[in-house]
Amino acid sequence: MNTIERIETLLTQIEDKAPLVHHITNYVTVNDCANVTLAIGASPIMADDIGEVQEITSISQALVLNIGTLNERTVGSMLAAGKKANEMNIPVVLDPVGAGASELRNKTVSKLLEQMNFNVIRGNMSEIRFIAGLGATTKGVDASETDLKGGAQYGIDTARTLADKLGCIIAITGATDIISDGKQTVCIENGNKMLGAVTGTGCMCSSLIGSSCGVSSDYFVAAAAGILYMGIAGEIAFENAGQKGNGSFRVAVIDEISKLNAETVHMRAKIHEA
Amino acid sequence: MNTIERIETLLTQIEDKAPLVHHITNYVTVNDCANVTLAIGASPIMADDIGEVQEITSISQALVLNIGTLNERTVGSMLAAGKKANEMNIPVVLDPVGAGASELRNKTVSKLLEQMNFNVIRGNMSEIRFIAGLGATTKGVDASETDLKGGAQYGIDTARTLADKLGCIIAITGATDIISDGKQTVCIENGNKMLGAVTGTGCMCSSLIGSSCGVSSDYFVAAAAGILYMGIAGEIAFENAGQKGNGSFRVAVIDEISKLNAETVHMRAKIHEA
Amino acid sequence: MNTIERIETLLTQIEDKAPLVHHITNYVTVNDCANVTLAIGASPIMADDIGEVQEITSISQALVLNIGTLNERTVGSMLAAGKKANEMNIPVVLDPVGAGASELRNKTVSKLLEQMNFNVIRGNMSEIRFIAGLGATTKGVDASETDLKGGAQYGIDTARTLADKLGCIIAITGATDIISDGKQTVCIENGNKMLGAVTGTGCMCSSLIGSSCGVSSDYFVAAAAGILYMGIAGEIAFENAGQKGNGSFRVAVIDEISKLNAETVHMRAKIHEA
Repeated sequence: MNTIERIETLLTQIEDKAPLVHHITNYVTVNDCANVTLAIGASPIMADDIGEVQEITSISQALVLNIGTLNERTVGSMLAAGKKANEMNIPVVLDPVGAGASELRNKTVSKLLEQMNFNVIRGNMSEIRFIAGLGATTKGVDASETDLKGGAQYGIDTARTLADKLGCIIAITGATDIISDGKQTVCIENGNKMLGAVTGTGCMCSSLIGSSCGVSSDYFVAAAAGILYMGIAGEIAFENAGQKGNGSFRVAVIDEISKLNAETVHMRAKIHEA
Repeated sequence: MNTIERIETLLTQIEDKAPLVHHITNYVTVNDCANVTLAIGASPIMADDIGEVQEITSISQALVLNIGTLNERTVGSMLAAGKKANEMNIPVVLDPVGAGASELRNKTVSKLLEQMNFNVIRGNMSEIRFIAGLGATTKGVDASETDLKGGAQYGIDTARTLADKLGCIIAITGATDIISDGKQTVCIENGNKMLGAVTGTGCMCSSLIGSSCGVSSDYFVAAAAGILYMGIAGEIAFENAGQKGNGSFRVAVIDEISKLNAETVHMRAKIHEA
Repeated sequence: MNTIERIETLLTQIEDKAPLVHHITNYVTVNDCANVTLAIGASPIMADDIGEVQEITSISQALVLNIGTLNERTVGSMLAAGKKANEMNIPVVLDPVGAGASELRNKTVSKLLEQMNFNVIRGNMSEIRFIAGLGATTKGVDASETDLKGGAQYGIDTARTLADKLGCIIAITGATDIISDGKQTVCIENGNKMLGAVTGTGCMCSSLIGSSCGVSSDYFVAAAAGILYMGIAGEIAFENAGQKGNGSFRVAVIDEISKLNAETVHMRAKIHEA
């Protein structure tokens, strides 16, 4: 099977196995993350107290760490859960929201990278640049225009180099999504600009990656799958509800994730090797 | 008046009195809980700091405790608020989200049960089994298939015995909803499977029970009312929006709660004594 | 330009400049605040850890403080962020949710007012009465009927006196919205009663004020703009979706904010000097 066939198959596997996906995430988009996880067929559990995160991780099939509204308490929980996941070979996805925007975020990301291994890191260009040590000029939680100047080829090189260095999948989402394991790299051209006008579409994408990692040990395919699912859902949602406005578009994104099937993925996927 | 007539009347009473319902709840579904409380005609207030929970409870007509994303800080607040409610004879609803899934959740539920009295406990079969000391094999926040094997009759027996033991209303929600005070037991067959595909429908159900308890000291009827309102709204929402997908269905559930009236409840209710 | 022309212009300026709006806010409505900020064209960032709030404020164009689910930890963060904003001349908006409902809220509001300057304070009649030292009989987070008895003229006098005393813009939202800087006062008659049946419409209004303050140093106009945008969006949303129920209405409010343009504002605005 090639990558796209495996992504189609993965969709059915998520529905069949309903993997439990433990999230330690931000309180801004947590409801969307739970709903998108259910919509794709997986089962979300959100738990962040140090007294239970290791146990919750140990019964889960994947762990998603998102630093969107990090605080001292939850960073400790992330470290504990992540180490447990590593011990038990449970896949861990990092969403380094706003990395580059504050010293606290920067230090936290560094600490997480030092103390545990991630299987997938998904961020925008600024966040990934920060992790790659390339210096980010991020403004808040969106990629800055300066950081996007390099274009797709620069992103591909960055993802490949960083994936190689960290030994994990690097996914940069943006106009062109880039996924690399250091050796193979694919680009995805699905999606719609309006996804950037709704909060949490990046976080939801990470939840979809976590859901995919929960049923496949090929994390490269799993990362591409989560991103492709989001991109295709965003496209169809825009066609159906874009004119109605941001609120309706957001509802439609969840609708389309919940109705996504292998056929739609097959017909719509714009994925190619870099 | 029989149970169903009293449930119909309750709907108008909630709208007339707009009871204040204090929630100490999880951050995943808190927005849905607030919106469903408003939709049924009550008034939500969410407050979890130990410095104010007793005071907020004391001005409220009901208290809803939900351990979905419990942490050390908020457990202390739950204990303080619950004791205050008991002192002042304000009804308290417990939603033991994920009881059975971690030691922390188990110990917290035990501590809450030891230190305060609840008027209604609403959970899925796994959560109620855990509280009944029957051993739960819950996976995350959903009832496990193993725990559901006993079927409706087993649920009825469990609810009845536990209600008798704890001296409070036990409500088990699932394909068949079961509500018991130890003597009388009713089953509700409304609802739709799609409610399980949206996060927070259980939490919202507990908010509706809290809203009902805020205007009626017959907590058996109040518990049945909250569950019936949710079931009927879920049914109509599915008819109107199920095909559109999970996002639209979720919006429709709130729509139908906000439009629910005594006539619809009367026509749709599938409630019978066990 | 008169006030309404400036409000129309502001809409385009927000879209052009996409100001970063730092929120330290409650977890009930935070997602709506983020989405409404994006919908109007600004960029939200939510961060509440004491270790980063000053830095995040310093890269932002406005700061919104909302005490809806205040706790000891976040009150400290609000103080630190607010002082930083004052130092750097970054506008600060206060949403004193539930002021008057508990000692903790009352003391927190007093502390915030003592230790920093606000540019705009937006609340309902009960909350503003509390701040004005007039005694509030608030029940939870809604204005009480007792406090509303004085009517619009009483509100105008209260806003004017308090604005003068605190040297900041006072905005009282309700059936008639009142905005005063102590000298000039305007009333807005847009909006729809259904906005009160959805949680967070007040919080979202404060986010829109924050977004407006992020591009204009005329905070009187900015406050009026945010309130007018919300009122007009609420009106159109009610026309389009009010019949469908609370869930659809809520989605429609965000839709209309995202589609709002100067023409619609011009045609619909019901704003007059008091």
